[in-house]
Amino acid sequence: MNRTGLPSVRRANPDDARAIAQLLYDFNHEFDEPTPRVETLEQRVVHPLRGGDTVVLLIGAGPDGLAALRFRDAIWSCGLECYLAELYVIPARRRNGLGRALMEAALHQARNRGADTMEIGVDEPDDVARHLYENLGFSNRSGGGEGPLMYLYELDLRN
Amino acid sequence: MNRTGLPSVRRANPDDARAIAQLLYDFNHEFDEPTPRVETLEQRVVHPLRGGDTVVLLIGAGPDGLAALRFRDAIWSCGLECYLAELYVIPARRRNGLGRALMEAALHQARNRGADTMEIGVDEPDDVARHLYENLGFSNRSGGGEGPLMYLYELDLRN
Repeated sequence: MNRTGLPSVRRANPDDARAIAQLLYDFNHEFDEPTPRVETLEQRVVHPLRGGDTVVLLIGAGPDGLAALRFRDAIWSCGLECYLAELYVIPARRRNGLGRALMEAALHQARNRGADTMEIGVDEPDDVARHLYENLGFSNRSGGGEGPLMYLYELDLRN
Repeated sequence: MNRTGLPSVRRANPDDARAIAQLLYDFNHEFDEPTPRVETLEQRVVHPLRGGDTVVLLIGAGPDGLAALRFRDAIWSCGLECYLAELYVIPARRRNGLGRALMEAALHQARNRGADTMEIGVDEPDDVARHLYENLGFSNRSGGGEGPLMYLYELDLRN
């Protein structure tokens, strides 16, 4: 616990692979996404945890939630781009500020590493997440909130 | 020219840095975005062209357009993620299929490198680009077009 009464956020290392795999499995399962088994995910998780471009943040003793950040060089400027790939808190620990604590740690981590921007793809009905991101200053309008709506388009190349 | 009557698409190399910088400058200028000088952009462009995670495709003799692709390892699967960072055709050459030719080459490039997905951030009023992406199978709804709208959220961390 820190002085806010919330569990501290810590950066995951390869020893956390199993716990991360379990959270990811639960995440996919909750939202009816197809998911590999926990053992398969555990093997996959080790690689990004060892690489330099991915940071996973964990919160709580379970752990009870995670944020996954990807970093890369910006192509036309000198800084880094940061992408929030995942944000998840287990159902039993929701509405307790854990998501916000993870996001604040994620922003701190991104700024410390020299990221100029953070981007997130969010589904329209995901009101809780959208409210959190907007509360932290994110906008789905370009130009820092003054411009038009920004959509995320995707194509599955395996089809 | 290839058999479609369109100029061929080719992959840029560091010798194209000046031409790419000019296209990027024109792009920013046209859309009233702040932009560094062409000389500054030229210096910055060389680095991503040498790195392994960025591919710039060029079309036309000018060249008259570009597509910039970023690649990275997916974190929870074995493939790559591809992000279309830029797509630009100079005003004088629009409505001639150059954007589509660039996109088809981009999809070919992404599949060849083993990307599982391609993502694009698009402003809502950008009808021409959205129509092109949708025509190629992209959707701004998750689940391959069946699910909810996907927004792109962004925060400038330098403020």
